[in-house]
Amino acid sequence: MGGDHAPAEIVAGALLAAGPLDREIILVGREPEVRAELARAGAVPPNVTVHHADQVVEMDESPRLALRQKAGSSVTVCVDMVRDGQADAAVSAGNSGALMAAATMRLGTLPGVQRPAIAVFMPTPHGHRIVLDAGANVDCKPEHLADFALMGSDYAKHALGIGEPRVGLLSIGTESSKGNELTLAAFPLLAALPINFIGNVEGNQILAGEVDVTVCDGFAGNVVLKVVEGTALELIADLKSALQRSVWSKLAALLMRPALRPMRTKYDYAEYGGALLLGTNGVCIVSHGRSDRRAMGKAIAVAAHSVETRVQERLTETFRRRQSVPVGAET
Amino acid sequence: MGGDHAPAEIVAGALLAAGPLDREIILVGREPEVRAELARAGAVPPNVTVHHADQVVEMDESPRLALRQKAGSSVTVCVDMVRDGQADAAVSAGNSGALMAAATMRLGTLPGVQRPAIAVFMPTPHGHRIVLDAGANVDCKPEHLADFALMGSDYAKHALGIGEPRVGLLSIGTESSKGNELTLAAFPLLAALPINFIGNVEGNQILAGEVDVTVCDGFAGNVVLKVVEGTALELIADLKSALQRSVWSKLAALLMRPALRPMRTKYDYAEYGGALLLGTNGVCIVSHGRSDRRAMGKAIAVAAHSVETRVQERLTETFRRRQSVPVGAET
Repeated sequence: MGGDHAPAEIVAGALLAAGPLDREIILVGREPEVRAELARAGAVPPNVTVHHADQVVEMDESPRLALRQKAGSSVTVCVDMVRDGQADAAVSAGNSGALMAAATMRLGTLPGVQRPAIAVFMPTPHGHRIVLDAGANVDCKPEHLADFALMGSDYAKHALGIGEPRVGLLSIGTESSKGNELTLAAFPLLAALPINFIGNVEGNQILAGEVDVTVCDGFAGNVVLKVVEGTALELIADLKSALQRSVWSKLAALLMRPALRPMRTKYDYAEYGGALLLGTNGVCIVSHGRSDRRAMGKAIAVAAHSVETRVQERLTETFRRRQSVPVGAET
Repeated sequence: MGGDHAPAEIVAGALLAAGPLDREIILVGREPEVRAELARAGAVPPNVTVHHADQVVEMDESPRLALRQKAGSSVTVCVDMVRDGQADAAVSAGNSGALMAAATMRLGTLPGVQRPAIAVFMPTPHGHRIVLDAGANVDCKPEHLADFALMGSDYAKHALGIGEPRVGLLSIGTESSKGNELTLAAFPLLAALPINFIGNVEGNQILAGEVDVTVCDGFAGNVVLKVVEGTALELIADLKSALQRSVWSKLAALLMRPALRPMRTKYDYAEYGGALLLGTNGVCIVSHGRSDRRAMGKAIAVAAHSVETRVQERLTETFRRRQSVPVGAET
């Protein structure tokens, strides 16, 4: 029920994903509305089912308040199904704060993890890179950033297939003396972790592909994502209008179309669909509020992939090992 | 003496600016080194002079420490010349923290301004937009953001020629309930100012030209700038390599060159040269550390323009009016 194009595009996305996926897709929401969308789509594959949830958390509602007052909301019911083993993963394009709060409160965090984080795949010309936290925790303590670094490094190994992912701390200069109170205090904590910590990184280095996992608080992470998206969109629009100015450039636009097509795909958020919430006891995927059917289909695929690659089990193991190391022995 | 290409490119930039400018340009630094650069350039215009300063603050030095230990550094001497009326403005491509600290400590802030801020011109497809603070204050209090908003609005009126600049608070959602502790506390303060406050803005809205003045702490501002720069650079590089893949796209690249030239200029930081430090008792221009001669020439032009448009006097008047308003009467 969540997201700018719900429930129509969410249902359409589920139907898109249902074909290639050998899994059951459970649509959680107001049954009459969901069924109406399914009817509109025609034949419903046998692996798409509906689970009724009466309430909806709106996009601008306070997450904590909504969770307290709307125990029957689709996001809460969805997360509870993961907790109770009725589903392997939850996917939502709705109020991301509400998904985050529901996941934290009803699934709980992995032992040793203080705060879950949203890990997004950032498209760069050099391939995907991971940025976390992308908005789950707007105000962080240094220890939270250390947790994000450990989770991000672990996730990158399996999701990006990198042996020793380069983990960087987002700051405003590469020297360890540069940063704000938070990053200055977090720096030594990250340096003490059993990860490939490359120190402070600046915003441009993420795009240049010089870092695999960028660690920051959710405010900065969200700013990074929105700015990358905005710059890419505006540049491409600006280029298009520049190419309409003369006959020659119009011809150029025509000739370059095949070369540009893969670029457009590369920077399209819908290609990545969903970001994994790392650190909760169960797989939760946060989708873009603007998700269309294609994005939703991809998000469901990300959820299935996360379950199949056993992300949760691996993370649990990583944090278990960390806790069994005597304090100080890590450094 | 400051910046990645000092003193060669700094001196060359001064010579570039000296021609069209009806002002004296005083090169402050180690006289033998500066004279050597001038000798290399050949004829020196009469409006370029040299003022000796013995020491140099390095790019990675702690600003406050450097200022205490290096009273004879070029940045300190330069700022002192502004304080003592020997110069109308100071320009530096060196350690921006050192310029900021020298300006704050030796010039002092305008009455009513708690913290000066760096205001940068951000190139967007829709023209220039202002972002502040761009890195002077990495940790801010809500009142600082209110000062930035008032200074930024005032500056935009004169620098961008906008009657009622739209001022936005950088956040992670447009609703007033979205943000971190800092922005949530700053929101009502900005709303109470005699400015055209449009509420929270997200990173992509800056690029879309939907806001004239974006207010944020120096950490977030610096992240925004670096990410815009990085995304633009990487996208353009990616486009170029995409266009090398076939004969047709190579032809396209050739045909579109005239259309792309103005775009390249638009997103080139060197076209803007310098950012004004707003709120100190004297004009100080912070240049990009990577400044080449062209960027330095533009930075000197920005300094001259700031003096001529009486930015300081206008800001002083704005804050004087604010202080004379009884508390509460503004809202």
